[in-house]
Amino acid sequence: MWRYIMLGVIPLRSAACLAVGSELLGQYRLDSNSLRVTEELARFGVRVEEKRVLGDDVDCVADAIRELLEKVDLVVVTGGLGPTADDVTREAVARALGRSIDHSAELESWIRQRYAEYKRPMPDVCLSMALHVDGSRPLPNARGSAPGLLVHVGDKILAVFPGVPREMEAMLESDLVPELEARCGQKHHLERTLLLGGVVESETEARVRKLYDRFGRENVTILASFGLIRLVLNAEGEGESVQRQLDEMEAAFREVLGHDIAGVDATGLEEVVVNALRSRGQTVATAESCTGGLLGAALTEVSGSSEVYFGGVVSYSNNAKESLLAVPHDVLVKHGAVSEEVARAMAFGVRSRFASNWGVGITGIAGPTGGTDDKPVGTVHWAVSGSERTWHGVARFPGNRSVVRQWSVNAALDSLRRRIERGID
Amino acid sequence: MWRYIMLGVIPLRSAACLAVGSELLGQYRLDSNSLRVTEELARFGVRVEEKRVLGDDVDCVADAIRELLEKVDLVVVTGGLGPTADDVTREAVARALGRSIDHSAELESWIRQRYAEYKRPMPDVCLSMALHVDGSRPLPNARGSAPGLLVHVGDKILAVFPGVPREMEAMLESDLVPELEARCGQKHHLERTLLLGGVVESETEARVRKLYDRFGRENVTILASFGLIRLVLNAEGEGESVQRQLDEMEAAFREVLGHDIAGVDATGLEEVVVNALRSRGQTVATAESCTGGLLGAALTEVSGSSEVYFGGVVSYSNNAKESLLAVPHDVLVKHGAVSEEVARAMAFGVRSRFASNWGVGITGIAGPTGGTDDKPVGTVHWAVSGSERTWHGVARFPGNRSVVRQWSVNAALDSLRRRIERGID
Repeated sequence: MWRYIMLGVIPLRSAACLAVGSELLGQYRLDSNSLRVTEELARFGVRVEEKRVLGDDVDCVADAIRELLEKVDLVVVTGGLGPTADDVTREAVARALGRSIDHSAELESWIRQRYAEYKRPMPDVCLSMALHVDGSRPLPNARGSAPGLLVHVGDKILAVFPGVPREMEAMLESDLVPELEARCGQKHHLERTLLLGGVVESETEARVRKLYDRFGRENVTILASFGLIRLVLNAEGEGESVQRQLDEMEAAFREVLGHDIAGVDATGLEEVVVNALRSRGQTVATAESCTGGLLGAALTEVSGSSEVYFGGVVSYSNNAKESLLAVPHDVLVKHGAVSEEVARAMAFGVRSRFASNWGVGITGIAGPTGGTDDKPVGTVHWAVSGSERTWHGVARFPGNRSVVRQWSVNAALDSLRRRIERGID
Repeated sequence: MWRYIMLGVIPLRSAACLAVGSELLGQYRLDSNSLRVTEELARFGVRVEEKRVLGDDVDCVADAIRELLEKVDLVVVTGGLGPTADDVTREAVARALGRSIDHSAELESWIRQRYAEYKRPMPDVCLSMALHVDGSRPLPNARGSAPGLLVHVGDKILAVFPGVPREMEAMLESDLVPELEARCGQKHHLERTLLLGGVVESETEARVRKLYDRFGRENVTILASFGLIRLVLNAEGEGESVQRQLDEMEAAFREVLGHDIAGVDATGLEEVVVNALRSRGQTVATAESCTGGLLGAALTEVSGSSEVYFGGVVSYSNNAKESLLAVPHDVLVKHGAVSEEVARAMAFGVRSRFASNWGVGITGIAGPTGGTDDKPVGTVHWAVSGSERTWHGVARFPGNRSVVRQWSVNAALDSLRRRIERGID
């Protein structure tokens, strides 16, 4: 112990998040700030061990702060710092720590200045934001007017941020991260996410099971959603060894999973596809029926997609399929709108129409109505058209309308990705 | 107090939710079960006062159950009931209540039967799910194999459900709701949500402020997101009086807000628009640039939208605007792709192309790149074309790419809604 004290560094290991706000106890809103906090703490090997959400009750909040400070090294409180009567967090901090709380002329002038910058008069209620808890460090708010605060309680830290996510995030970076760097500087927890498309969770788990023993079950997390799988690899250690551990893990997983790995640390298949197209100078256009624009929306969510995405047609009606995508009338009549033939014709048609390198077509029955014995709800055909040929896929996806549509988009994106990667255009 | 006891009914008033599972303490997943639980409890006037999330640690979970049972009347625990070693909730319940926990032959046979129904052998680890906490009522799982449990602790209730949302939901309905009906049967809490489009939160708040005094500030919640406002009206009471209260509140808010109210208890503007079109036998088509298909995707998220939505064009490139939407080349050159003129031409063009009653066009700069001094990031033009004329709107929306796109969709949907409602086609 004395070595740490000599160095002045007692590492932080455990943390808790407390979100304050009655709106977070209703049926509509969840506290999502804790995800961002957890992500940042994980980088420094600090583990979140508990989360709480409480309403705007000063005693409850004070009790919780006290209880959590007994359990963990770092408590991050978000919310309840605004100017209205139901903002009780400052007062609760003072009560929890048994410290005085007083008006601060310095804080007031800072808040007045913020309002002056916005060219708005400061309402009197905002004076409550100028209260200072004895012994705390006020944290200026780069993106708003409510200051945060940070208190060292013995070896522990209590950090209090506004509930507005972008204000919280800026303060987390500017004021908590430096503390973490000072206290946990040597140890790093890093993660790397392998994104997989076109695979099923249980099969993937079976394929990688043997790697659990090698790297530790707790260091690999599988997250699945609608045809997308994220394999999160974790490593902890000092300096560059963490990166080396992750490199080794990634190599081992690549050996097992091969081309099913679509990308590393990508937000989704749409990002992988846009990057793959961009690096090859290629382009794509989309023809959508049951997904109604969701595939185009996914691709264009990626900044810079305009370089590679020419656009698309949402051919919800058969008429649109014929007139805009040149799907032959007799193909529609013979095979029905939800069929391999129509998916292929849509992909081919949109590729010709937009003169893009690739064309993607999706047609299916998202439900809840429209299913038949032959083509039950969830039946989706998709096709990818390149210069040499057109590929086709079909599946019956589980879930409700929204879920079937999401599966469809991911299935089509993954098919496209595999074609692009194989360099057949 | 004795009156209640004579009737055998001590109403439940307060509740807490405890989610168990280390995966809920990471950076990816939030406990969303609590929203569903809160919604159900609200119907019976039971208020959630605290939420906690804990990892798979039997002592921590036991402590939390004990603490929460001291604070509130009803504790709902979700998760940690599965068959693996990290599922500790049953054991934690026994420790928290100081009760014994033993193998139950009855539970085992129920679980074996479930596996037999799936035509799968029951792995031995599943025996852990057959543990019975003394004095608890086991809850069969209609949608899975892990039983839940319910314990009466004095006048309080501890309900323990699986973490899988659909399993939790079925058990909540079949096993907790009857308890709530028995204990809170006479009192009903209902809510009604007014959906507003095309308005700003702070202005809306100013307009309805006087109604707060009349109906109580705590009975009105304003939720704003990207151009959509939800005004949630709450009423509590017995029998039909609750509906009457809500009717009265709605009428008062309608008087103030008029046509800004787009719908009641609607999931979004897309639902309002689809219903408005359907009831009038009208149709729409969409032309999207910066939203890349998001407007089409929103409309087609509504089941039955195929009756009113013919489809659309995602004209991400200028080429597509010209060839598919007949936007004149010189208009594009003179005014630029992001302009009133092009938005109008897109709406008009797509309406002609699809021969629909209405056409909607959106063009803008979602960012983060592409902004200029004249047309900064967030600048969006939209237009609605009907048989007699074309209307135009423009705004500079705040936020990142994704947020600007969401605002744009809502702005366009609200413009369309207002035109449809005024019956000008």
